Amino acid sequence: MEMEKIGEKTAREWREQCGIVGVYNHPEAANLVYLGLFALQHRGQESAGIVSSEDGKMYTEKGMGKVADVFSRARLEQLPGRMAIGHVRYSTAGESSLAESQPIVVKYAHGIMGIAHNGNLVNAEQIRNRLVDDGSIFQSTTDSEVIVHLIARSKAEGFPRRIIDSLSKIEGAYSLLFMAEGHIIGFRDPRGFHPLALGKIGESHCLVSETCALDLMGATLVREIEPGEMVIISDAGVRSFKPFPPEKTSFCIFEYIYFARPDSTIHGLNVHMVRKEFGRHLARETGVDADLVIPVPDSGTSAALGYAEESGIPYDVGLIRNRYVGRTFIEPKQSIRHFGVKLKLNPVKELLKGKRVIVIDDSIVRATTSKKIVSLLRSAGAKEIHMRISSPPTCFSCYYGIDTPTRQELIASSHTVEQIGRFIEADSVAYLSVEGMKESVGHMKEKICCACFTGDYPLPVQEEQFVQLRLFEPI
Amino acid sequence: MEMEKIGEKTAREWREQCGIVGVYNHPEAANLVYLGLFALQHRGQESAGIVSSEDGKMYTEKGMGKVADVFSRARLEQLPGRMAIGHVRYSTAGESSLAESQPIVVKYAHGIMGIAHNGNLVNAEQIRNRLVDDGSIFQSTTDSEVIVHLIARSKAEGFPRRIIDSLSKIEGAYSLLFMAEGHIIGFRDPRGFHPLALGKIGESHCLVSETCALDLMGATLVREIEPGEMVIISDAGVRSFKPFPPEKTSFCIFEYIYFARPDSTIHGLNVHMVRKEFGRHLARETGVDADLVIPVPDSGTSAALGYAEESGIPYDVGLIRNRYVGRTFIEPKQSIRHFGVKLKLNPVKELLKGKRVIVIDDSIVRATTSKKIVSLLRSAGAKEIHMRISSPPTCFSCYYGIDTPTRQELIASSHTVEQIGRFIEADSVAYLSVEGMKESVGHMKEKICCACFTGDYPLPVQEEQFVQLRLFEPI
Amino acid sequence: MEMEKIGEKTAREWREQCGIVGVYNHPEAANLVYLGLFALQHRGQESAGIVSSEDGKMYTEKGMGKVADVFSRARLEQLPGRMAIGHVRYSTAGESSLAESQPIVVKYAHGIMGIAHNGNLVNAEQIRNRLVDDGSIFQSTTDSEVIVHLIARSKAEGFPRRIIDSLSKIEGAYSLLFMAEGHIIGFRDPRGFHPLALGKIGESHCLVSETCALDLMGATLVREIEPGEMVIISDAGVRSFKPFPPEKTSFCIFEYIYFARPDSTIHGLNVHMVRKEFGRHLARETGVDADLVIPVPDSGTSAALGYAEESGIPYDVGLIRNRYVGRTFIEPKQSIRHFGVKLKLNPVKELLKGKRVIVIDDSIVRATTSKKIVSLLRSAGAKEIHMRISSPPTCFSCYYGIDTPTRQELIASSHTVEQIGRFIEADSVAYLSVEGMKESVGHMKEKICCACFTGDYPLPVQEEQFVQLRLFEPI
Amino acid sequence: MEMEKIGEKTAREWREQCGIVGVYNHPEAANLVYLGLFALQHRGQESAGIVSSEDGKMYTEKGMGKVADVFSRARLEQLPGRMAIGHVRYSTAGESSLAESQPIVVKYAHGIMGIAHNGNLVNAEQIRNRLVDDGSIFQSTTDSEVIVHLIARSKAEGFPRRIIDSLSKIEGAYSLLFMAEGHIIGFRDPRGFHPLALGKIGESHCLVSETCALDLMGATLVREIEPGEMVIISDAGVRSFKPFPPEKTSFCIFEYIYFARPDSTIHGLNVHMVRKEFGRHLARETGVDADLVIPVPDSGTSAALGYAEESGIPYDVGLIRNRYVGRTFIEPKQSIRHFGVKLKLNPVKELLKGKRVIVIDDSIVRATTSKKIVSLLRSAGAKEIHMRISSPPTCFSCYYGIDTPTRQELIASSHTVEQIGRFIEADSVAYLSVEGMKESVGHMKEKICCACFTGDYPLPVQEEQFVQLRLFEPI
Repeated sequence: MEMEKIGEKTAREWREQCGIVGVYNHPEAANLVYLGLFALQHRGQESAGIVSSEDGKMYTEKGMGKVADVFSRARLEQLPGRMAIGHVRYSTAGESSLAESQPIVVKYAHGIMGIAHNGNLVNAEQIRNRLVDDGSIFQSTTDSEVIVHLIARSKAEGFPRRIIDSLSKIEGAYSLLFMAEGHIIGFRDPRGFHPLALGKIGESHCLVSETCALDLMGATLVREIEPGEMVIISDAGVRSFKPFPPEKTSFCIFEYIYFARPDSTIHGLNVHMVRKEFGRHLARETGVDADLVIPVPDSGTSAALGYAEESGIPYDVGLIRNRYVGRTFIEPKQSIRHFGVKLKLNPVKELLKGKRVIVIDDSIVRATTSKKIVSLLRSAGAKEIHMRISSPPTCFSCYYGIDTPTRQELIASSHTVEQIGRFIEADSVAYLSVEGMKESVGHMKEKICCACFTGDYPLPVQEEQFVQLRLFEPI
Repeated sequence: MEMEKIGEKTAREWREQCGIVGVYNHPEAANLVYLGLFALQHRGQESAGIVSSEDGKMYTEKGMGKVADVFSRARLEQLPGRMAIGHVRYSTAGESSLAESQPIVVKYAHGIMGIAHNGNLVNAEQIRNRLVDDGSIFQSTTDSEVIVHLIARSKAEGFPRRIIDSLSKIEGAYSLLFMAEGHIIGFRDPRGFHPLALGKIGESHCLVSETCALDLMGATLVREIEPGEMVIISDAGVRSFKPFPPEKTSFCIFEYIYFARPDSTIHGLNVHMVRKEFGRHLARETGVDADLVIPVPDSGTSAALGYAEESGIPYDVGLIRNRYVGRTFIEPKQSIRHFGVKLKLNPVKELLKGKRVIVIDDSIVRATTSKKIVSLLRSAGAKEIHMRISSPPTCFSCYYGIDTPTRQELIASSHTVEQIGRFIEADSVAYLSVEGMKESVGHMKEKICCACFTGDYPLPVQEEQFVQLRLFEPI
Repeated sequence: MEMEKIGEKTAREWREQCGIVGVYNHPEAANLVYLGLFALQHRGQESAGIVSSEDGKMYTEKGMGKVADVFSRARLEQLPGRMAIGHVRYSTAGESSLAESQPIVVKYAHGIMGIAHNGNLVNAEQIRNRLVDDGSIFQSTTDSEVIVHLIARSKAEGFPRRIIDSLSKIEGAYSLLFMAEGHIIGFRDPRGFHPLALGKIGESHCLVSETCALDLMGATLVREIEPGEMVIISDAGVRSFKPFPPEKTSFCIFEYIYFARPDSTIHGLNVHMVRKEFGRHLARETGVDADLVIPVPDSGTSAALGYAEESGIPYDVGLIRNRYVGRTFIEPKQSIRHFGVKLKLNPVKELLKGKRVIVIDDSIVRATTSKKIVSLLRSAGAKEIHMRISSPPTCFSCYYGIDTPTRQELIASSHTVEQIGRFIEADSVAYLSVEGMKESVGHMKEKICCACFTGDYPLPVQEEQFVQLRLFEPI
Repeated sequence: MEMEKIGEKTAREWREQCGIVGVYNHPEAANLVYLGLFALQHRGQESAGIVSSEDGKMYTEKGMGKVADVFSRARLEQLPGRMAIGHVRYSTAGESSLAESQPIVVKYAHGIMGIAHNGNLVNAEQIRNRLVDDGSIFQSTTDSEVIVHLIARSKAEGFPRRIIDSLSKIEGAYSLLFMAEGHIIGFRDPRGFHPLALGKIGESHCLVSETCALDLMGATLVREIEPGEMVIISDAGVRSFKPFPPEKTSFCIFEYIYFARPDSTIHGLNVHMVRKEFGRHLARETGVDADLVIPVPDSGTSAALGYAEESGIPYDVGLIRNRYVGRTFIEPKQSIRHFGVKLKLNPVKELLKGKRVIVIDDSIVRATTSKKIVSLLRSAGAKEIHMRISSPPTCFSCYYGIDTPTRQELIASSHTVEQIGRFIEADSVAYLSVEGMKESVGHMKEKICCACFTGDYPLPVQEEQFVQLRLFEPI
């Protein structure tokens, strides 16, 4: 049983999104950004950073790790000024260093600017290559730095125009915050892949990835930023622009399925309620006789509640989650069976023994985790195990990014549902239908990006040219 | 909004217990202890330590913080040998330093010994004073060091006899692990206040505070250690002794109510099932018409499920818990209202709006947290809020320890249930009855210590002489 | 006596130079660079860095502090490859961060390159402004980054040509190392302000700031690099070029006076021997009757030996230097008299009592330190104190740089020697003459830059345009 | 050339002594102790610690490393009170941990006490064994803890009496500082092996290992503490006692030869002057025709000056010492010849070439370093090399301690001077005679311990019982 260090990702299957927060015109801008980032911690635990601005200077504090670990009181006190932006970054297997962390701050011909970015660009690589050919020197491998260089080279006048000029060259997913010259500027890409919301704290304004951040910051929601909208917050108030031609909205359905926090509201829909609706549709579509409905905590909880309500089968907590999985864990090398899953989940044997159990999870990637969960429940004495998934089979990769794994890793891209059931050794497996999923999101029905389920990409994909986004983390 | 550093205790109301693990005769003893401690992390997050033994030498690695943060692979590799013991310590406001952490290792006249202790002694102070008068020099303020000095001065022959000799002078609560001279010895006090279980991994044996640790270690439960039992694990196998006269068992009911993990089994009863039973009795005793039953997560979850089942009122998740509260958090000084609670809990407004809600918590201490939760729910739009507590009013302090707060801090010691309801501004408040609680624990009915509810102390209390245990942490 | 943190600069009066080392074609290139940097530690203690190259990739390890503190075995093992360059940086009051440390490594259109720079450019600011206007983004405030951006934008073909193209735009002092595309390239500016030498270790070649580094690296000196010379070390061997028109050599005389190590040889002259010669000339020019000649250690030692030899007055060690002045020292705020000097120097009272003492120092800047030394010696009982300086009065600032202090801070720019003597309260003060200094350096007599003594600048100075180099650190 | 981490001891041959400082009745007691320790840094670089006392409480700050590295302003501010004691510890190969560092602070029956110790006890082991048999638990392997336990068990009344009671059981070398109950107490063993001096700062008093500390503290020397003297500093002033019968003074001659700083005065003699006198006697006894006298810096410097003065042969600096050897250095494994010495010393070839050189060192241990120095000088071109040692051959080990190396490691214990000369390949080797050494120390002639030269031990030695002190560190 040689021990090996494993990352936190063991405990996480889905690629996370970043979280961003900006505060304008508040005497404690940085402190508020800190609170907002803390509430958005679920969107990224790799690194956290805040940049504040006072008297034309910018102050940066960044570090690897979680918000509460990165920021001490002393560090927060190093961040003066009435405006600030912040960022939490998701954890990838690859380049994970402070150089990649955000916000990015650079000096350029027109002064100094800060930027925080959530999303992935489709044509970053080509633009980057062109800029490098022209002598630009990059400090990181992030998409976001491409935007910075475009702004530095823009000949447009004024910071807002330079941003528009630069983003006009960009294709992809972005919710962006910029800070410079007495403005904080928020920008959401025309397809609106990821969320962004505007809040108010007294006379001050703030921009946040999800509304749950507003609650902790003591702010109230003004409204969500629309796809394609640019808001300029300055002493002149909040001004709104739509510099680009409108596109069909393609909001990332995985924000509802997995990324966002249940207590957030996006496009007017509460995430917990949407997930319960997924569960209800799932129950209707895939009903089976059983004694218990249990979630794979925490991501399956809301859908399991909806499933239980709809089906009338009692909901219970059959898997206890260990809350103390830290940044790194030393795992036995010579693997104890199902170790990765056992580390975070332990069954309540006395509850499961002899029962027919419906287990609700939000999605299946490689199915190795699902297989371990089934085995865990079986060994705890469950008589029947029916796996129910509150989203459709993920057959296609997300192409709006730079990570490398391929469609081949997605079990649903090459296996039928029945084959998956045999692989994970469940008594049955069933997924929510695409139609059921769409029905669950009400007015958003036609405004979601379902490419990972349908292959129907809102932006043209040239597979030989772009590498795809690593939507799923390895177990 | 000046920011102040606050400890993790903000997120925790109840004093935690320590967790202990020992492994005998396994080539990777320290690695297994590490896994066991990880599973017992909920019993203490202040410090973690492991001591292993090889060829008569002992190797110690200890650190402040959580198991996964304290132990790197490099540190685990510094722990050779086929036997090891480990400890996780709870976090107190007072002396919180590495010097207080365990296991304790000392050299004395008969060699070297290690010790890990869960519990609090009643007469530690008097014995300590006597030892100091005789020239003993103490390194820490822990009760546990008293036992060590008694053993160092014992004239009895052989390590087991020295332990018995020393413990014969001790009164109080203890589950203890000792390591020396080729033995690991486990000892549970005659009243059996805290749990201790024996497991088996192949040919090796282990001792753990709770059975949930066995699951992660890949061990099977042999049996629980009985009150007053001493087990000596050596190459001669596992031998059992009861060196002291039997006492009435007084198992700490708060292990069932709050301390233990739901997936553990203690005295043959699964903790989650016991808590659901508390909830069912609570529903029968305190029923009220409502739309929703929600728990205060995570400690109220099991009881809320039981309450919902019994009452037929739907269970839902109305408060989302932030999982990322770290060791320290910088809090606004000029307090945002309800900040401490908002940090960890956020309501799902869309669910609660206009609803009559029953909220289940495991206990009320000062009631300040309960008051904040009621207010949080109210501001989220709940129409009625009925607080239901899955244990009786805690009117009396726990006297088996050295911390200082007094009965006056317990709101139930000086207020009627009705007054508490008015204080927390709930539409109603009700507690489980002592009788209902006892009924819920089946065969343990007469074997539990309920002193904090009834004032009926199993060990004589001399209030002017002993200071009481700080059962509750300040918010 | 409030205590304040003071930097190591207390112990140092003169601005230091950087040190650079490159090794080509050695299986342990990085280890050798490490040894070389260690030997050049006197040229800069602020930061240290090494970049190695293997298979077209570059590996960087940098840190604040001294070589032996920055590099652990583990860090050295992160530096594979048969070529490497390294850098130690001097400590300034201003921006002192890892971002400013070297070597710099950047990716650009033609791949990846590393650069290490000793010197200061005269027209860095103008070029920098022009580059920024064109959209370049700078990461540091160093001159050296200007060169990097010029190379990144150069349209010339091949790495050597791009270097020449870029340096043709640069004016100032530089000894440079470049690493890329299978070459290590050394370049010394046409006036040869700072030293650079070529060595050989078996079949491998190396480039170092001073020859003392060769000794520790186990290398032999091949020859010194000439002013204006570019050497390209590759698998084709060592090739030499002089791409720019020749200029009059202007070697920085302060390398002989203070910067270089006594055991180094520069332009064929051993530094210790040159300093002794300064001392001999000083004795001839400024003789005075006395009992003892003592140095201000360590920088006055060589000249004091020469002075004693020439004058026949016994040399002794009258001031003991504390070797343990670390990175930071906490100094009493409410200043104990002469504290800064007492920290590093303590007189041997028994030696000095009643004696007429000649004290030799290498230079006087503001004279505050000299004043304290005189007072220290006086209080130790010295009867007469004659301060003798082994260089001429420094009346002019060095203009090849970017730091800010002005001529007004140099006491010799506004005071006669007699006035200086009264200020420092010595019985007499005398300096070496410019002529005597020139005579001491033999064949280099007409090839040295004496601008700080004579105001005769080898490169045209436009005072309103360029800020001057901070030649002297504040005490 | 695999690289290996080596300690600073490479740069040091002789075991160092500890340094101690105490300050009574000063508003900035801890700050003054800090300055004193800084001045005594040469007596120990392994760890540093300060304990201050206010209102009956003690405050401790300790750390591994040098004074300036261990103490930040923040740490010094954690040390309130008008009295404080401090300690710097020498670096040994063996147990080198914070647990071994001093001052030691313990709570015992009569309150709390602090202790700082310079020296080694002869009978520590026996007393320790007896205490352990009686149930004492030790925390470290230091001699000093034995004293602490004796005090804790003493039945005498009052802190001073308990100290006397305890020290009456002790044999060996000690200069001790105690702090408790409003006193600082200094105690020097009856034979006075190591120095201790009393100083005055305004109305406050201080105790220091060497007088050089007084200079930096701004204190004046009152007088040195006599062998066997106990001084009690309290609000009643400074009281002196001699509790034990007088013994013949046996001051450690190595304090004059190597340990102490040249600017210190011990028993009325300045160390630099004594060393010069060693050099003069050495010149008279071992004269040889030569061109140059050079020291092995820094320990040979004073004697070399005396030798040059007496012989009329010019003194010069032929070996340059690298001042930047840090705590650890990564050395090539596959050893470059003479690496250890090259790291710290580099010859000035231009000075040595073709010269007949006399090299002065303070002592020879194993002779491996001397051999490397001879070779270094030879390769630098020296024609003749005459090694002269400013102390007699060290044939006997120091028996006042617990370290383990034996007489066999001392080359002089088994080789004639002629054999040593052949081994180190010098043209000649000669030592100072014991008689010459004694003549050099004037009134101390009959009051020094010369056991390491003569085997004439002032305290009876039972070789089978006590292990000897490791006087010399391995190269």
